[in-house]
Amino acid sequence: MAKDRYQKGIEKIKELTSSSDENPTGFMDIGERFEEIAPDLSKYVVEFAFGDIYSRPGLDNKQKVLTTITALVAQGKPQIEMHIKTGLSVGLTPEEIVGCIMHLIPYTGFPSVLNALTAAKKVFAEEGVTVSASDE
Amino acid sequence: MAKDRYQKGIEKIKELTSSSDENPTGFMDIGERFEEIAPDLSKYVVEFAFGDIYSRPGLDNKQKVLTTITALVAQGKPQIEMHIKTGLSVGLTPEEIVGCIMHLIPYTGFPSVLNALTAAKKVFAEEGVTVSASDE
Amino acid sequence: MAKDRYQKGIEKIKELTSSSDENPTGFMDIGERFEEIAPDLSKYVVEFAFGDIYSRPGLDNKQKVLTTITALVAQGKPQIEMHIKTGLSVGLTPEEIVGCIMHLIPYTGFPSVLNALTAAKKVFAEEGVTVSASDE
Amino acid sequence: MAKDRYQKGIEKIKELTSSSDENPTGFMDIGERFEEIAPDLSKYVVEFAFGDIYSRPGLDNKQKVLTTITALVAQGKPQIEMHIKTGLSVGLTPEEIVGCIMHLIPYTGFPSVLNALTAAKKVFAEEGVTVSASDE
Amino acid sequence: MAKDRYQKGIEKIKELTSSSDENPTGFMDIGERFEEIAPDLSKYVVEFAFGDIYSRPGLDNKQKVLTTITALVAQGKPQIEMHIKTGLSVGLTPEEIVGCIMHLIPYTGFPSVLNALTAAKKVFAEEGVTVSASDE
Amino acid sequence: MAKDRYQKGIEKIKELTSSSDENPTGFMDIGERFEEIAPDLSKYVVEFAFGDIYSRPGLDNKQKVLTTITALVAQGKPQIEMHIKTGLSVGLTPEEIVGCIMHLIPYTGFPSVLNALTAAKKVFAEEGVTVSASDE
Repeated sequence: MAKDRYQKGIEKIKELTSSSDENPTGFMDIGERFEEIAPDLSKYVVEFAFGDIYSRPGLDNKQKVLTTITALVAQGKPQIEMHIKTGLSVGLTPEEIVGCIMHLIPYTGFPSVLNALTAAKKVFAEEGVTVSASDE
Repeated sequence: MAKDRYQKGIEKIKELTSSSDENPTGFMDIGERFEEIAPDLSKYVVEFAFGDIYSRPGLDNKQKVLTTITALVAQGKPQIEMHIKTGLSVGLTPEEIVGCIMHLIPYTGFPSVLNALTAAKKVFAEEGVTVSASDE
Repeated sequence: MAKDRYQKGIEKIKELTSSSDENPTGFMDIGERFEEIAPDLSKYVVEFAFGDIYSRPGLDNKQKVLTTITALVAQGKPQIEMHIKTGLSVGLTPEEIVGCIMHLIPYTGFPSVLNALTAAKKVFAEEGVTVSASDE
Repeated sequence: MAKDRYQKGIEKIKELTSSSDENPTGFMDIGERFEEIAPDLSKYVVEFAFGDIYSRPGLDNKQKVLTTITALVAQGKPQIEMHIKTGLSVGLTPEEIVGCIMHLIPYTGFPSVLNALTAAKKVFAEEGVTVSASDE
Repeated sequence: MAKDRYQKGIEKIKELTSSSDENPTGFMDIGERFEEIAPDLSKYVVEFAFGDIYSRPGLDNKQKVLTTITALVAQGKPQIEMHIKTGLSVGLTPEEIVGCIMHLIPYTGFPSVLNALTAAKKVFAEEGVTVSASDE
Repeated sequence: MAKDRYQKGIEKIKELTSSSDENPTGFMDIGERFEEIAPDLSKYVVEFAFGDIYSRPGLDNKQKVLTTITALVAQGKPQIEMHIKTGLSVGLTPEEIVGCIMHLIPYTGFPSVLNALTAAKKVFAEEGVTVSASDE
């Protein structure tokens, strides 16, 4: 039933965002602000993106969020901030997130990477996260 | 020294492709076929892409190749085949590789994913790899 | 139920491709050739792309296919051929299909348009369709 | 004559924007703000984009603007706001505009669609347009 | 008059391709093969792309073709081959063409550059052009 | 040695930005603001982008910056402002910079060009540069 996929999607979002029952979608943008112009959008986001796709086997949550972050960096999408936050929530270290972004230099070039690091720096500051001195 | 970065890059490529000393770059395309028109290209590929970037801390090899594959799927680049082969070489399971590609549907849409699965199917056939029936 | 969305998707594909009960998906590529490596792909294509999205209100079938063709031209995806064929099937005239592609010149530039016209010319030849001399 | 193409373009813009003789280009951005650095830009916009291309046969105005909106969503361009406004002006219903954007989910992924809906929501609010509850 | 722009465009193409009066468009693809499906395309290519844009002041022909090649590399378009040929025709040295492509590594990443060098290598072989050993 | 490549990169940046010994990187963004999260980024920018690539033979500085600007316009990257400033610094005239951007209309479409001209207008105003009335 559609309801099951919706519920499955909400459970996945709770797991990804470590959110509470009071605010099950946590900081995840499921598009509810478009309720009046596109009332079925949030349903598709929850049911399909999270209920179907994020709930697939094959990758663990950390791998899924790394994949998401990479796709958004390669495309230059503003949603990268929210998914970096999700990355921290599922246990990616800031070193892994930065490592992922830096790894993209030979594939996307420097400008995409600079833009993504701007997003990472902002999220790390908001979340009080620091990066250990792993490079030299 | 530049020589060190080159050597470091070659070592990394050997590690990624499980190649022998006789053929250290293995199946990795480092652009040697452009020797006559762009003789410094293969140097940049080995020194920068592999000696500098692939040798960074932060991600393990499996994460690095997943990140590479994702970037190539998001951009629709033909190099995806070679990097899927690299993925198998560093120990990514076919389920992880397919899981990564399928995870991109909500971020890149279906056409990019169909094109990437065509590449994966070809590489899996060449490598004699089968995917276990993990979906239903 | 998921089964309903699948059935709804199949019905939509039959409508779009004017296909028979014997071959309900007609010429539409739903990714069945990936059965062995990504068995859930065709389910997502049918249930989500056709059962959910193509079955939405708002646009008629001709508008939906024009939108699809435009997106594929703008992204340079090879699936444009199949969707031009779908366009003819739902009643878009060749003049509308060419009109759509030509309209994109100021938005995507000439190269994307030339590539798309190559696809259109091939499909028109296969389908025995001619374009009336509406331009001069 | 070039003057004819310019006049033809202005007439087309008036038609698309329902503008008056006092302000013939209406809300359409023809690049006049670049008069001092690129004085021929607005000429190209009016003569080529509107005089030649928007004046072609094949598609009606509603189809032309749907095609334009789709191309801009697929490319993530900020001009989408102005062309959604043009869509309303030529008689596209808000349901058709939202229907077009939502239809793109399987082809561009969710992030592009979320960004486009943000633009649509803003324009609809400015124009006092509401979307009927056509989804559920 | 439109005829003047067409003639101006043909003159520019002759200049760019060093073509003869018998075959004024030389090796330049102006889209004549789409005569039956989009008879106005070649007119737009000649009048607008060459008569208006390539005939603008500001850049010399070598700069214009370098700009064209760069745009096509950054977008991964197949037209790059023809424009590399045009580059040789207007006097760009193979070192300048390769220099341009190599310069893009930090901006587009390696895969786009590898694909472009494949095109350059093919054109250089067809034209009997060799690159001097300027790198080391 | 790595130090040599770094020094070579700094020299190149000084040359490109006409900067002083006190502030050798001038207005060039080498990513130093990411020191705490990605301490090796600025090293890669200086060593690879400037020490290796910008220091290659084949193109002169004006051609290199034109190529950079074109790539950024084609990709819609915000770094275009800084590189237009670099263009002025290496001696590109504002007419050449505008000529380059306008030349891209047939290859990227109008929206990318409008966005790039907005950046150019801003930089020209900041730098007190005017464009001579070369068009009409």
